[in-house]
Amino acid sequence: MSKKPLILVTNDDGITAPGIRTLISVMKEIGDVVVVAPDSPQSGMGHAITLDSTLHVEKVTIDDGDQDEYSCSGTPADCVKLAINEILDRRPDLCVSGINHGSNSSINVIYSGTMSAAIEAGIEGIPAIGFSLLDYNWNANFEATKSYIKTITKNVLTNGLAKDVVLNVNFPNVSEQVIKGIKVCRQARANWKEEFDKRKSPQGKDYYWLTGKFVNLDSGQDTDEWALENGYVSVVPVQFDLTAHDSIKTLKKWKLND
Amino acid sequence: MSKKPLILVTNDDGITAPGIRTLISVMKEIGDVVVVAPDSPQSGMGHAITLDSTLHVEKVTIDDGDQDEYSCSGTPADCVKLAINEILDRRPDLCVSGINHGSNSSINVIYSGTMSAAIEAGIEGIPAIGFSLLDYNWNANFEATKSYIKTITKNVLTNGLAKDVVLNVNFPNVSEQVIKGIKVCRQARANWKEEFDKRKSPQGKDYYWLTGKFVNLDSGQDTDEWALENGYVSVVPVQFDLTAHDSIKTLKKWKLND
Repeated sequence: MSKKPLILVTNDDGITAPGIRTLISVMKEIGDVVVVAPDSPQSGMGHAITLDSTLHVEKVTIDDGDQDEYSCSGTPADCVKLAINEILDRRPDLCVSGINHGSNSSINVIYSGTMSAAIEAGIEGIPAIGFSLLDYNWNANFEATKSYIKTITKNVLTNGLAKDVVLNVNFPNVSEQVIKGIKVCRQARANWKEEFDKRKSPQGKDYYWLTGKFVNLDSGQDTDEWALENGYVSVVPVQFDLTAHDSIKTLKKWKLND
Repeated sequence: MSKKPLILVTNDDGITAPGIRTLISVMKEIGDVVVVAPDSPQSGMGHAITLDSTLHVEKVTIDDGDQDEYSCSGTPADCVKLAINEILDRRPDLCVSGINHGSNSSINVIYSGTMSAAIEAGIEGIPAIGFSLLDYNWNANFEATKSYIKTITKNVLTNGLAKDVVLNVNFPNVSEQVIKGIKVCRQARANWKEEFDKRKSPQGKDYYWLTGKFVNLDSGQDTDEWALENGYVSVVPVQFDLTAHDSIKTLKKWKLND
């Protein structure tokens, strides 16, 4: 029987994306790999799940590797739920998601399908990591990420992660020689300055495209944005207890029951 | 000129849902109301946003009230972005989302379209509250929620909220007489024990329906689940800094740069 760890691989760009193909190739050097990923791109899906519709899963072969791969009609979170409950014959030792084509640093974690898959695995008690490269191109060069992914993954398998914590890893869009190393960070305070592109349809009706400009509101040097801007790989421990514990005391002083 | 607060109302069950109609009626007693809500149900959408498609907005009249209402083709988070950036002529003083038909307590906050709208407003620096009733029925009775919504909303307008914090309010599914009051809580540790209902299509292909059983893993009496089970309205302060700050020190000891 294999003593290798069982690694579930998923993403939000779809099962044929170059990012997940890179991630699969790295994971195959570490463990036994099963892929359950969306059949089409799911970027910006946040932590969506499919409640009012059916889910379809198909066993597929994308490259000539020996890993089992399943293409799923659902969201990244659906893929993780289905993999753990229906597809895998034992609990995975690790779930990795990505490599996303584009940043999931700072506030982007909230909108991220890549991270929703990692968080879903975390909710199920499985150590999980989301990987993203700051390059939105389909043909982005993922070479520089490989050795860092291996290092971080091996550390997670060796050390484990705290209960209810998963990792959000982002790579700067620079060559391997320029990367300075790995930095453990906090999520930067940031938002998007939305600019809607308002247009008229051929029928004369208004419609909009969402566009925007990312604004880093955080001058701290301990943030993921700082790390990435300065050539580091950022690692942020992410939790899904959203309670703002510091606010509880304040709210308890309010006149809510008078 | 009106000195009333400007209140943006949205939800994830769609603009015609009884829950949002109740919320609008309460908010009209407190301020000037503008409604920007999805044209169709968006439950389980998490913090999805529309990146690869167009957004359509239509001014609509649902009841005979004097509030402006806009029906939007996007997700709850899209509605808030569009409202703030394109529809409203000044920044709202408050954003309220709901009343959701169904619970958004504990881990449900992660999957919640209702809360994603509140969080989106929070990211934009606008005080925000999500309201949910523990009754999934379209014809749920929202009467008991009204006075509590008014109390909580007025407290938020008077006291403000800490930076980057929004409120997640859930109502037990009991009559007004039975509600014991309002409790400030933390998010309970919980998950869903998924059970996929596997079926065969008329064409002989497997497909799945996602079903599941909610499991409260938390025995604490300071949680939202405890409050709701014991007849209280739960109020959880929610943050969108997902950093697991306690884990940073541990991760810094890992051998990531050897």
